[in-house]
Amino acid sequence: MSTHTVTVTGMTCGHCVTSVREEVGGLPGVRTVEVDLSTGLVTIDSDSQLDPSAISDAVAEAGYAVAG
Amino acid sequence: MSTHTVTVTGMTCGHCVTSVREEVGGLPGVRTVEVDLSTGLVTIDSDSQLDPSAISDAVAEAGYAVAG
Repeated sequence: MSTHTVTVTGMTCGHCVTSVREEVGGLPGVRTVEVDLSTGLVTIDSDSQLDPSAISDAVAEAGYAVAG
Repeated sequence: MSTHTVTVTGMTCGHCVTSVREEVGGLPGVRTVEVDLSTGLVTIDSDSQLDPSAISDAVAEAGYAVAG
């Protein structure tokens, strides 16, 4: 198991949270995705190490961006 | 044809706009629904007069509120 955390910018409502959760949750090996709307913090538990660019791409696919 | 305008509060992003448009657009006789996210103004064209409470109910169903 591996845990990744990223901060996502641009989420404003529960729909945004759902979009991010669905896209990131669709990455291979991802078990759970927790999203804190107020902070933008996204916590991802996965079976193995995730490629940070794969996370960024999934977040972008949802219409948002990873900070930093 | 009849045109109604209401101001909806709480919409923050395009997903919110879509939710309101879908719910209000589902009211009987509604032809078009335009939503301005920046002002919250929702303009509804319908075949006949709409009951204001039906509009409020649809907006509430989407998770938002009509102002005033």
